[in-house]
Amino acid sequence: MDNPGVARRAASRRAGETRLVSLTDIEAAAERIRGTVVRTPLIPDADLLESLGCEVRLKCESLQKAGSFKARGACNFLARMGPEELERGVITYSSGNHAQALAFAAGLKGVRAVVVMPTTAPRVKSEGARRLGARVEFAGTTSQHRRVRAEEIAAREGFVMVPPFDHPWIIAGAGTVAREVVEDWPEVDTLLVPIGGGGQVAGCAAALRRLRPDATIIGVEPAGAPTMRRALDAGAPRTLERIDTIADGLAPTRAGDLTYAHAAAFVDDVVLVEDEDIRRAARHLMLRRKLVVEYSGAATVAALISGRIAAAGPGGAPDSTAGSPRRNVCAVLSGGNLDTSLLGEILDPAAAA
Amino acid sequence: MDNPGVARRAASRRAGETRLVSLTDIEAAAERIRGTVVRTPLIPDADLLESLGCEVRLKCESLQKAGSFKARGACNFLARMGPEELERGVITYSSGNHAQALAFAAGLKGVRAVVVMPTTAPRVKSEGARRLGARVEFAGTTSQHRRVRAEEIAAREGFVMVPPFDHPWIIAGAGTVAREVVEDWPEVDTLLVPIGGGGQVAGCAAALRRLRPDATIIGVEPAGAPTMRRALDAGAPRTLERIDTIADGLAPTRAGDLTYAHAAAFVDDVVLVEDEDIRRAARHLMLRRKLVVEYSGAATVAALISGRIAAAGPGGAPDSTAGSPRRNVCAVLSGGNLDTSLLGEILDPAAAA
Repeated sequence: MDNPGVARRAASRRAGETRLVSLTDIEAAAERIRGTVVRTPLIPDADLLESLGCEVRLKCESLQKAGSFKARGACNFLARMGPEELERGVITYSSGNHAQALAFAAGLKGVRAVVVMPTTAPRVKSEGARRLGARVEFAGTTSQHRRVRAEEIAAREGFVMVPPFDHPWIIAGAGTVAREVVEDWPEVDTLLVPIGGGGQVAGCAAALRRLRPDATIIGVEPAGAPTMRRALDAGAPRTLERIDTIADGLAPTRAGDLTYAHAAAFVDDVVLVEDEDIRRAARHLMLRRKLVVEYSGAATVAALISGRIAAAGPGGAPDSTAGSPRRNVCAVLSGGNLDTSLLGEILDPAAAA
Repeated sequence: MDNPGVARRAASRRAGETRLVSLTDIEAAAERIRGTVVRTPLIPDADLLESLGCEVRLKCESLQKAGSFKARGACNFLARMGPEELERGVITYSSGNHAQALAFAAGLKGVRAVVVMPTTAPRVKSEGARRLGARVEFAGTTSQHRRVRAEEIAAREGFVMVPPFDHPWIIAGAGTVAREVVEDWPEVDTLLVPIGGGGQVAGCAAALRRLRPDATIIGVEPAGAPTMRRALDAGAPRTLERIDTIADGLAPTRAGDLTYAHAAAFVDDVVLVEDEDIRRAARHLMLRRKLVVEYSGAATVAALISGRIAAAGPGGAPDSTAGSPRRNVCAVLSGGNLDTSLLGEILDPAAAA
């Protein structure tokens, strides 16, 4: 991107035809879910300040209800459903966090919920969804497998589909994360958001681009699951043949059409991180920041500690401009649902080498 | 206590002679340390709400700078020192958290710091103090051992002593925890605070008693280290012969004179918890709340999950009055400096039996 401003505005015009989520949508979502979800804290990271030279604050969606930012979209979606639809019950397909979020949101309203998860879903997530009252079904290992199964069940039993990311109500709910960041830290100038299906980056970028037009918005994907990076390079979502990452929440095979449109319009760059850096980041967060964060949620910190942010975005490296004021970087920790069996792996010093 | 109000006021009159910390002292401390320490979040605990029937929010001092509430007192103390004293450097004796806090506070001001820790101090704490720039000395295993050594070094080398808990500046700093709780949750009616030397309960009780005169303030101690419980029963601090608890931060052999005076004046009750309940609480916090909390910091949640709060305080059980509004309980999680080697123990399901 030689002139990212021009490129962004051009993309924005194209994307405008797909009805991008507005700041008003996000404000309305924030109003709807207030008191239902946690206003999660921003925690400073003094170690990253020291090693990177920029002020880093962590937006702890790991401390959100049902353990991830997904509660925001699910609660916003159910708040917009009519009584007749609620009566039918809801269904979704999810690697786990959206499933738990929907179970949580449905439980609050006394609505039946079915969630279709991969056979490989972390136990912490399938058990979490069950504990929250959902009926859990398993289907295959890819997002395509579980989507097909969920659509079958929905057609047969009449449930209303609540898609995991590619829907304006879900995106608007996720966007409330960035709105809170700006409220709590008006000086923020760089936002890092993990990308799975792209719902969170879409919503956060939609909010931040309007609230702080000059801020830099960077998405982070595993090198083994670069769906949004590939979509942006190709000019449209592409289905990846192969996904290979420990970050189970960032592993859809294809970006959403609507989330892609938001990324194209509002996101400055998407960087890729290696699994070993994600492990190091999760270890740092647990041992130094006292936060249990799942691999998917630690991707943004992985991007920071591996130096991937240095070359990213039109703003350049956070510390690249000698004499300029210190950059203010917010890294979203999107979820905390780390499987217990992985805690040992994180604590293994070999993983931190 | 048949009539706790009368007993409290009588104790308050007696204690008045020892100059109890005032709300003004605590407000001034809050002003001094603003921006230096973290305004830690209050996180709701839906599981405890479900199992106990009262609204529980966790005040996460585990996410504080240097990993515990101790940063507040240390920063307040150094802010009150004159330039000549700062030039001399500071020294303390501590099981670990106050040591790290002093190292942190001294580091910010470029002041030399020495900390004397027990030979049994968790590595996470001794290494933490070193990383923050302090000179670490080890002496014996009890608070008496390390105090004597620290006083020797101070006399020989001219350092200013910053006591770990029994000082009005330290107590006022700790009291800012309760002040934030009331600001963020005006409806709070019950506050649970762990007791080691008693600095935190003294400061928090001094704040809460003035801000919410009708609130219930309960201290929590390990059954194997009941220094404040013993002091209140005896009418004065007593040195315990034997200390036996996994909560290394709650293990001084004697309550402070000043902290005792505050507890006698302002605290409704002190309850005791077993080590196995502390382990269960730490496990709950890690797996369900995604928070790494050290054993000492988990004592308040241990008191809740073991039912020790039911019979405590003049307000009675949080859920004892049928038809009364739900009680609003804040449990302070005082620190997060859990030794890495203990994480495995916490994750062992046998420990949660």
